[in-house]
Amino acid sequence: MKLYHSTHAPNARRVRIFLAEKRIEVSFVDVDLARLNHREESFRAINPFETVPVLELDDGTKIAESIAICRYFEELRPSPALFGTTMIERVEVEMWQRRVEFFLLLPIAQVFRHTHPAMGRLESPQVPEWAASSRAKALASFARFDAALEGRPFIAGERFSIADVTGLVALDFTRPARLSIPENLRNLHRWRADLSARPGSVD
Amino acid sequence: MKLYHSTHAPNARRVRIFLAEKRIEVSFVDVDLARLNHREESFRAINPFETVPVLELDDGTKIAESIAICRYFEELRPSPALFGTTMIERVEVEMWQRRVEFFLLLPIAQVFRHTHPAMGRLESPQVPEWAASSRAKALASFARFDAALEGRPFIAGERFSIADVTGLVALDFTRPARLSIPENLRNLHRWRADLSARPGSVD
Repeated sequence: MKLYHSTHAPNARRVRIFLAEKRIEVSFVDVDLARLNHREESFRAINPFETVPVLELDDGTKIAESIAICRYFEELRPSPALFGTTMIERVEVEMWQRRVEFFLLLPIAQVFRHTHPAMGRLESPQVPEWAASSRAKALASFARFDAALEGRPFIAGERFSIADVTGLVALDFTRPARLSIPENLRNLHRWRADLSARPGSVD
Repeated sequence: MKLYHSTHAPNARRVRIFLAEKRIEVSFVDVDLARLNHREESFRAINPFETVPVLELDDGTKIAESIAICRYFEELRPSPALFGTTMIERVEVEMWQRRVEFFLLLPIAQVFRHTHPAMGRLESPQVPEWAASSRAKALASFARFDAALEGRPFIAGERFSIADVTGLVALDFTRPARLSIPENLRNLHRWRADLSARPGSVD
């Protein structure tokens, strides 16, 4: 079993944090996105959609998409449960995972892709107006998530989950995207600090 | 149990198709997106993220996000299984659901949101350059999905799944987005025709 990943790709980091929380070790294979290795024929044979991470099982099966890979490990090692344990928990974790992904990670990533000079080869053309619009969406989301975190330790409730993994990756991705989280959003800052203290947050 | 939805919203349609496949009936509550009803205080109390669909359970629990709602119904009525039956099937369905969502539905929806005059109130500002870039991404995806569908009836393999639900909604959303699927992509056209013949595709 090996994981094709990239140190800088936020989706690959999601899987690494998930594995650390599960205490699972795998072999890593680096894919250099800056050199466009993911667009080469050899990698397209592994994932025709040209994204990392990809998990290759021992029988050669290839699983792309960070959340699909995390679900694989959740089934392989159910404890600690990071996708919820009861029916309603599983459904709420899914809801929050998607909210964090679409309302937080996505607009932050769009700001990064459409403003950072190094992304010019990957995101072509970069559209400054879309970066500005995405920045406004991200700022509106910060306030929404701050409100959602009032009185709850984790975004899906009492337990740490995959939704928090996506949350930490999103919040840390504000740095290369050059977005600031307003000081007054105390719940959001507290959430980020708590998540940053967990295993796997630094790699 | 009732479902807040909108006839025209692609994410609400995903749930309606899913329910038809499961033969589950629920009560519907219309939310008029054109009149911005989803941004009113009364709806923000139901979903602070201002999206449809939202499922309200009899105990008042509110589940937002189409895929989270579908997972709720999958657990409530497991047969026919639309998220896979074996571990590897479940993981591959998740992978394909996400690929269809991010590589097909998302760019098509971006074209629609950033070009259609009626969307000016919901997507402000509309960015023509981002619409053009999204159009190119959608066209590139058409070819990729056509290749992926070679020799397989459904996008995740032999069985119809939630990934196909997202696929049909995405392909039909090309019409308001004014995108044409090239004639030579025969697998993609065959897939769409097969999915269009299923229950719940017309509503």
